[in-house]
Amino acid sequence: MRVLSGMRPTGRLHVGHLVGALDNWVRIQNEGNECFYFIADWHALTTNYDDVSKIYEYTIDIIRTFLACGIDPDKSVVFVQSAIKEHAELQLLFSMITPVGWLERVPTYKEIKQQLSYKDLSNLGFLAYPVLQAADILIYKPDGVPVGQDQVYHVELTREIARRFNYLYGQVFPEPKELLSHLPKLPGTDGRKMSKSYGNVILIDTTEDELREKILRMMTDPARKRRSDPGDPEKCPVWDYHKAFGTTDDEKEYIKNGCRTASIGCIDCKKVLLGHMIERLKPIWKRLDELKKNEEYVHRIINEGNEKARAFAIETIKEAREAMNLRF
Amino acid sequence: MRVLSGMRPTGRLHVGHLVGALDNWVRIQNEGNECFYFIADWHALTTNYDDVSKIYEYTIDIIRTFLACGIDPDKSVVFVQSAIKEHAELQLLFSMITPVGWLERVPTYKEIKQQLSYKDLSNLGFLAYPVLQAADILIYKPDGVPVGQDQVYHVELTREIARRFNYLYGQVFPEPKELLSHLPKLPGTDGRKMSKSYGNVILIDTTEDELREKILRMMTDPARKRRSDPGDPEKCPVWDYHKAFGTTDDEKEYIKNGCRTASIGCIDCKKVLLGHMIERLKPIWKRLDELKKNEEYVHRIINEGNEKARAFAIETIKEAREAMNLRF
Repeated sequence: MRVLSGMRPTGRLHVGHLVGALDNWVRIQNEGNECFYFIADWHALTTNYDDVSKIYEYTIDIIRTFLACGIDPDKSVVFVQSAIKEHAELQLLFSMITPVGWLERVPTYKEIKQQLSYKDLSNLGFLAYPVLQAADILIYKPDGVPVGQDQVYHVELTREIARRFNYLYGQVFPEPKELLSHLPKLPGTDGRKMSKSYGNVILIDTTEDELREKILRMMTDPARKRRSDPGDPEKCPVWDYHKAFGTTDDEKEYIKNGCRTASIGCIDCKKVLLGHMIERLKPIWKRLDELKKNEEYVHRIINEGNEKARAFAIETIKEAREAMNLRF
Repeated sequence: MRVLSGMRPTGRLHVGHLVGALDNWVRIQNEGNECFYFIADWHALTTNYDDVSKIYEYTIDIIRTFLACGIDPDKSVVFVQSAIKEHAELQLLFSMITPVGWLERVPTYKEIKQQLSYKDLSNLGFLAYPVLQAADILIYKPDGVPVGQDQVYHVELTREIARRFNYLYGQVFPEPKELLSHLPKLPGTDGRKMSKSYGNVILIDTTEDELREKILRMMTDPARKRRSDPGDPEKCPVWDYHKAFGTTDDEKEYIKNGCRTASIGCIDCKKVLLGHMIERLKPIWKRLDELKKNEEYVHRIINEGNEKARAFAIETIKEAREAMNLRF
C-alpha cells in the first residue's frame, strides 16, 4: 500500500504530534508500506503569509524530528512540498474543475476563520488550500492517507476531484481512502487543546529538566485541591498522558486507586508518568542531538527525498497534462 | 521597454485580432522593444475546461498566425504558457496574498458569467484567473502590457498584487503600466461584436473567394434597403473596415459622398474595401501556406521561445522564493 501524509511548518513538534501522528506514521512505515511524508510549507503560507521568517527553520526542525522519532529515509520518502513544483501545476489544473462551492462548504474553512479571527484569512490561498491538498495527495497516487478526524472531509474532497478529473479527461487518478488513526489527542499542560498559542505545549525536543518542570506543574483534576482530597483520573489531563506513554496496567491500577482514595498525591502519580516519558523520549533526544551536529546529513536526506518525490510527481503530471491535451 | 501580452487558444484568429491587437504587437516589436508574446492555454481552461479537444490545435494555429502577421521570432519571444511551469508556482504564491474580494470585484468576472450563462463558471480557476494573469505578467517584469480597455482592471490588479508582495516580502516586482491601444474594434459581418459564437467572423486564415463572399454578404446601413436609398457610413459596419484596412482619403470621400447621395451602391463600396483587404491579407496567406508546409519550423520556434521565456521566469521565481523564505 502507498500512503502519504504531511505536516505544516508553523511551529516545532510537540508530544501530541508524536503520539497522535508520528508513532502511527512509523508503524505504517515499518509494516512495509511505501510511504511519502512531507513538509507542507506552501500550506503554511495559507494562514501565515504575513510572517514567513521561521518557515525554513521550522521545516528543517520538523524533518530532524521526523528522523529522530523513527521515520527511516531508507524506507520512507521524506520531502519538502515547495521543492516539487509539480504540486503547484496540478493544483492549477484541479482549480479549473473544482467548484468554489465545494471549497466554501469545507467545514474547517469556517471553523479556522473563526478560531483565527484575529488573522486576515480572506486570501485566495486559504479558500483554495483543499485543492492544493488534493494535488499534494493525488500526484503520488496513494491508496491511503493517514489523517485525524478533522481531515476526513479533505480526503473526501480529494476523491471528488479525482473522480471529476477522470470523468472529464479519462482515468488518471485513484480515489485514496482516509486511514483514520483513532489515536489519543493529548491535552496541553493546562488541560486545554495543546496549542502553541495557548503556551501549554510540551515540545518533543526538550530537556529532562524542562520536561520534569512542565509535568510537575501540569494541571490535574480541579476538584482535588488539597493532598487529602480524593480525585478522579478521568477528569485529569495527566491520566491521558499515562494512557499514551506506556504506563503499565499495574501502575494504572495503583494510580486510579491511589487518586480516588487520596492515598497517593499528584506528585506520586506524575513521577510514574515522568519515568515513562523520559524512557520514551531519551533515545529521541539522543538522536536529535546527533542530527543537530550533522546538518549536512539532514540536508542530504531532504535532497534525496525531494529527488525521489519529484521523479514520481513528474510522471503523474505528464499523464494529467496529456489527458487535458496540454502537450508542452 | 519590455512588454508582454498573450491570447487564449479558444478559437482561430480573425481580422479583428489582426487590426485590434497583432498590428499593434508588431509595431511595438519593430520599435525595438523587448517583447514576450504567448499563448495562454491554461487560461483557455478557465472557461473551456469541459472541452479540451482543440486546445493544442488552436495553440499551433495561433502561433502560425502570429508569425504570418509579422511577429518575428528573432525579435520577440513567442511561447506557450503551460510550458513554463513557473507561472503556476508564482500564481500559487500570489494566491496567498490576494484577497478573494479583489477577485469578486473584477468587472469581467460577473460580465463573462452573464455572457456565458449557458456554461458552468463556478470553478475556482475562473475566479482565480486574474491571479494567474498577474503571475503571467509579473514573472517577466515588464514595463508595459498592451491591452484593450476591457483588460485595464486586470493590469491594475496586477500592480496591486505586485505592491502587496513587495510590501510583505521586499522589492521583487515592478508595477507595469497598461499600454492602451485605442485601436478600432471591428464588428462582425452582421454588425454585432465579432465572435465565434455569433458565426459572424472573418478569419485571418481564409481564401480570396471566401473573403469576397463574406464581404459582399456583409450587413450595411439597415436604412439603405434599396440601391436608390441614401445611406450613412457611420451606421454601416463596412465603414469600420474601410477605416481599418487602408482605404485612402480620396476613396473615403468617394464612398461617403456616394453612399449619402446613393450615387454608388453597397457593392461598389465593398469592392474598394475588398481590394484593400486582399492586398493586406495576400502576403499573410502566402506566409501561412509556407508555415503550414513547415510544421517543424513552427515547433522549433515554439521550443526556442519556451526556452527563452523559461530562463527568464526561473530567475524571477528564484527571487520570489527567496523573498518568501522558501529555500528549496
